[in-house]
Amino acid sequence: MSSSSLDELITSLKCLPGVGQKSAQRMALHLLERDREGAKRIAEAMSTALGSVKHCQQCRNFSDTDLCEICSDSGRDQRTLCVVETPADVFAVESSAGYRGRYFVLLGRLSPLDGYGPGQLGLEELEQQLGKGAIGEIILATSATVEGDITAQYISDIAARYDVKSSRLARGIPIGGELEFVDSGTLSRALAGRQQID
Amino acid sequence: MSSSSLDELITSLKCLPGVGQKSAQRMALHLLERDREGAKRIAEAMSTALGSVKHCQQCRNFSDTDLCEICSDSGRDQRTLCVVETPADVFAVESSAGYRGRYFVLLGRLSPLDGYGPGQLGLEELEQQLGKGAIGEIILATSATVEGDITAQYISDIAARYDVKSSRLARGIPIGGELEFVDSGTLSRALAGRQQID
Repeated sequence: MSSSSLDELITSLKCLPGVGQKSAQRMALHLLERDREGAKRIAEAMSTALGSVKHCQQCRNFSDTDLCEICSDSGRDQRTLCVVETPADVFAVESSAGYRGRYFVLLGRLSPLDGYGPGQLGLEELEQQLGKGAIGEIILATSATVEGDITAQYISDIAARYDVKSSRLARGIPIGGELEFVDSGTLSRALAGRQQID
Repeated sequence: MSSSSLDELITSLKCLPGVGQKSAQRMALHLLERDREGAKRIAEAMSTALGSVKHCQQCRNFSDTDLCEICSDSGRDQRTLCVVETPADVFAVESSAGYRGRYFVLLGRLSPLDGYGPGQLGLEELEQQLGKGAIGEIILATSATVEGDITAQYISDIAARYDVKSSRLARGIPIGGELEFVDSGTLSRALAGRQQID
């Protein structure tokens, strides 16, 4: 096409997840035609984020500072630790607004074939925190997959060694779920985990 | 959340068309977790494009130079001019690979209520080119909407004043279109424009 820096912008936008040639083209043309301020803002925000976002030394979540906002928030329950796989999971749990403890972000899940062992997941750091006796409960919020389950089991074994109780997110029928359309695996877990009505 | 520069990156990504909070979050986390090189590339490409992309002085398409690649390509038919509404339309016509002439980009369509008059569409520049006698045919490839039709009519009136013939893209059933699912307007245009089989 007629502009090589426009071509390069379109090609670079394809680095975004879920963005192909057509979307990248639409984004680039939109920004140049109608939202140059927005383009400037994106370029600046991206440079700033690349320079300043690192991992929190305590929970391994993304943070601009050594200790992230959640870890340094004294209003939160410091003795409850929610273990999640990714920073996106922290967003998800935070938006549910039912949790006021701390987090620990694994940045992956146990998967030896992909090169994710206990070292990559920062389980030594987690064990150090358990060793200090500062944690009363671990909530394992890894994903409901085989690897997520194995990761949760592995961490609950570590927690047991330090006499820290650990729990797993409840499995069952999602809110608004029609029984007819719930898959059989979920349904059998919901049956096994049925709760008595008081 | 825990990182203000991450927050700012997510907010800025919402400037992209079709990107809401969730997608912006996914993009930002993907880039920071898995593709920092890509993020750097986007930031640089965007800054470069903002600084160097301007409009071609002849066809008004985006270009790094005063005269865009297409306008300065002597291998193209300089006497045929395809009039389109946006730079995205140039991409579309180019990808159809059936056209080897020049373009003229209106950067809008006649719509007085939205403030788009002949001046905004660069019709004076177009008239100058027609006045020089350098153009033999105008292909009006504005969109198949009421405003697109009015714009095409307006431009063909100008062309007629300079004795330049103008044509409009054919209307009809799209390739692969099943008659059953073609809307009635398109079908009536296809009937009216039926072509004899030799």
